[in-house]
Amino acid sequence: MNKPYCHYRGKFLSLLERDTWEYAERINSQGVVVIVATTDEQDIILVEQFRMPVNTSVIELPAGLMGDIAEFRDESVFAAASRELHEETGFEADHWNHIMECPASAGMSSEILSIVRATGLVRTGEGGGDSSENIHVHIIALNKVDQWLERQISKGKLLDPKIYSALHWISQEGH
Amino acid sequence: MNKPYCHYRGKFLSLLERDTWEYAERINSQGVVVIVATTDEQDIILVEQFRMPVNTSVIELPAGLMGDIAEFRDESVFAAASRELHEETGFEADHWNHIMECPASAGMSSEILSIVRATGLVRTGEGGGDSSENIHVHIIALNKVDQWLERQISKGKLLDPKIYSALHWISQEGH
Repeated sequence: MNKPYCHYRGKFLSLLERDTWEYAERINSQGVVVIVATTDEQDIILVEQFRMPVNTSVIELPAGLMGDIAEFRDESVFAAASRELHEETGFEADHWNHIMECPASAGMSSEILSIVRATGLVRTGEGGGDSSENIHVHIIALNKVDQWLERQISKGKLLDPKIYSALHWISQEGH
Repeated sequence: MNKPYCHYRGKFLSLLERDTWEYAERINSQGVVVIVATTDEQDIILVEQFRMPVNTSVIELPAGLMGDIAEFRDESVFAAASRELHEETGFEADHWNHIMECPASAGMSSEILSIVRATGLVRTGEGGGDSSENIHVHIIALNKVDQWLERQISKGKLLDPKIYSALHWISQEGH
């Protein structure tokens, strides 16, 4: 197998090719952390933001880049997750667990997601993201989330399918 | 909002920028179809292949590009799904339903996945993919799939998180 060849290096993404296979790679990041966060009252925490690549509002699990800012270059997965959860949603978590590492989109991107579980949540801020973000927080009862998500689709929003992965992982806890 | 600007156009992927946001876009495709297929015996059909961008074997739901080959340019979602399911796994399905459209990776790609449900499966071929693919088919009992997936992780394979979305959608059927 040959080394990847870089066709174009942007500010945030590169387009690489290895053995005739083209794919995107993120620059200035040690990976992405994705957070499955639920409250003691059995609510799941979701975020909504406009996503330029799909030109639509997308509802997703809270998530963010690890190590994309110089002062956080070497932060751990849980430190990044804690920072991103608070920035985006205003929640802090007592308990953190690792769920798994997954490819974001294995056919076209080298990105690996570190998926973590957050429980024991206390809200100590408003969230909304950093100065470049405009994030709306949704706190939805787990036993009504499927119907709520269907309503969001009917409003023209897109849903990140990892929300449903999260619902499966939550349903398996204690099994 | 400005029109996207193309920084680089490859054979399969472009790197675009809109309002300072960089993202990847697939060329020569009308989208991607992803198939949640289960047998009458309550097995789920999964596929495994080496994925160049992550340099690892990845286990995924059967999936494929729509309209990437000239003769199939205008095929429907279900026609593409039926073709890809048979090509990759050897199965044909009696019943097809639409689940939802989802972004593949909304922060870095414009790709939209059409997720469909296939039931009433009959195996009429071996699968394995087209001449450029080397796909291994896994037929796994739904009531043992969580443990099976954990074993695959311990073997160093990566799992597409949409497998778990599929398990949630299947669990909700009839609710």
